[in-house]
Amino acid sequence: MGKKNKSKRYVVGVDLGATKIFTVVITKKGKIKAKARVKTPAQEGVAAVVGKMVRSVRRAVEKAEISPSQVLAVGVTVPGPINPKKGIVFRAPNLKDWQNVPLGTMLEAELDYPIVLENDVNAGTYGEFALGAARGKRDVVGIFPGTGVGGGIVVGGKLHSGFRYSAAEVGHMIIHANGEICGCGNRGCVEAYASRTAIERDIRAAITQGRPSVITDLIDLENDRITSGVLKKAVKAEDEVVTEVLKKAQYYLGLHVATIVNFFDPEIIVFGGGMIEALGKSFLKPIRQTARAHFTNRLEAKRVKIVPAKLGDYSVALGVAMLARRAVK
Amino acid sequence: MGKKNKSKRYVVGVDLGATKIFTVVITKKGKIKAKARVKTPAQEGVAAVVGKMVRSVRRAVEKAEISPSQVLAVGVTVPGPINPKKGIVFRAPNLKDWQNVPLGTMLEAELDYPIVLENDVNAGTYGEFALGAARGKRDVVGIFPGTGVGGGIVVGGKLHSGFRYSAAEVGHMIIHANGEICGCGNRGCVEAYASRTAIERDIRAAITQGRPSVITDLIDLENDRITSGVLKKAVKAEDEVVTEVLKKAQYYLGLHVATIVNFFDPEIIVFGGGMIEALGKSFLKPIRQTARAHFTNRLEAKRVKIVPAKLGDYSVALGVAMLARRAVK
Repeated sequence: MGKKNKSKRYVVGVDLGATKIFTVVITKKGKIKAKARVKTPAQEGVAAVVGKMVRSVRRAVEKAEISPSQVLAVGVTVPGPINPKKGIVFRAPNLKDWQNVPLGTMLEAELDYPIVLENDVNAGTYGEFALGAARGKRDVVGIFPGTGVGGGIVVGGKLHSGFRYSAAEVGHMIIHANGEICGCGNRGCVEAYASRTAIERDIRAAITQGRPSVITDLIDLENDRITSGVLKKAVKAEDEVVTEVLKKAQYYLGLHVATIVNFFDPEIIVFGGGMIEALGKSFLKPIRQTARAHFTNRLEAKRVKIVPAKLGDYSVALGVAMLARRAVK
Repeated sequence: MGKKNKSKRYVVGVDLGATKIFTVVITKKGKIKAKARVKTPAQEGVAAVVGKMVRSVRRAVEKAEISPSQVLAVGVTVPGPINPKKGIVFRAPNLKDWQNVPLGTMLEAELDYPIVLENDVNAGTYGEFALGAARGKRDVVGIFPGTGVGGGIVVGGKLHSGFRYSAAEVGHMIIHANGEICGCGNRGCVEAYASRTAIERDIRAAITQGRPSVITDLIDLENDRITSGVLKKAVKAEDEVVTEVLKKAQYYLGLHVATIVNFFDPEIIVFGGGMIEALGKSFLKPIRQTARAHFTNRLEAKRVKIVPAKLGDYSVALGVAMLARRAVK
């Protein structure tokens, strides 16, 4: 291909999720050269999943029409707690048998590239910092409301993983002492108010209480989940129950942003994830208002940007690819 | 003195408070060579206060028995919001006429040293990092409950001032949405539960409700404040009301620490200030327990240290002296 002698310049990012594996090959400047999306064989055990990740990397490199020797490193994210230094995945609740998996070593043996492991939401935030909505900023916080509420922190242009690699658990900041029960077992976490799970809980409670809602027309309440797509339709239909429940979540997210800003004073807060994408930019407006009204430093409140993510589905894969580049440089 | 030709090696730290001015001269290694404490002429306007700061620096240098030319820089803290880069004090609520004071320029004109300006609690946290309880750690959060609840953040060995120089307003992290009213006008801030002011409010409320308390013997409730010293005496006397009110504050401080740890995952949290000093080490025990029970990453909970400050009254002056040294290096 005439490129064999060119120096290594590409990196690969792999976002292992509970349902899909996203893979990207990116150039030095962060442009996507190739991408791939395959299903995660979540129920087939560790070897099956790792095998599929390896094939996904190889296929993406082929699709990019580059020589495998031009790849500098591979970044990988997993849906669970990890030790990035040791390349170990402690557990991944949605993947069968994933406990204390030495993923770094396993992938390195198969792929012969340096492997960089990171938490998924951390990588997503880093992606938005490096290539997306927070490009050019130095101090960034990402908030990703979904089944839970995940997050990421960039300080001075570097990902802040924390002393025990457990920073940015933004969903478990306590916003209402002794409040709603959270999935973590404690009470009053942000996640218990502003995750899609909490929103679904409140909508179901209102319907159970007999309040009319378009939700009952849109899905079979007994068998279906209230997905982000369903929420979107209900908002479009100006459903009273859904609007009210979302308003509560927005209020809590506003207080959450204020708490983060009063502590950390970042330049920008990026909201990402499927729910934010489905509900659109207008979802952030009341969050912004509540947040700014609760800033301690209110004079320059508008200098702190509160914006939607830009990279969509590939933010995590892109972010971890950029982290891999940075790590091996 | 035979020292004239030695290179500049000392720095001075000045902690301008509402009641006192603390000044230290420290060696390269952070040892105190001389210290001074004078009253702040808080009601006499800007010129009087600045004049007293200048004299305090000169006297401390004399007491240190060094030549003025051996001083590398002077660090200064003030009790109010500032722009450290521009050397401006926006306001200092407890000092008469302090509004938009170009303190950096004023002191430089008189003293002919580079002046480094910082927020007081930020400097106190940095002092504990550089010379006190958090020495050798990289990521540190300081919490100082007093009239309000102030704080400081060190990330990777550097003070984190924030994008708008308003980071570490830890007292205004919201811990109980729609809860108690805070001095800032919002509801549910940590400060509204765990400051000495909040503690005093709750003790007074209990006494007004007719509950017996040793506090009524210790002070004249109409004219005196419930100071940290009074709290200490009441705890020693095992006063039921005071113990109960402090328990509530400790519970909220525990949730507060957990919120900070789940967000930031620092190595160490340092509690400082007069109230913590008066109440002693045992005050932190229940805070530690509540905090760790609310960590998202609980397996390694004990690796995150939660400790009392070590530097006492001079922590702020020492911290800003160390910041000055770092800034001019």
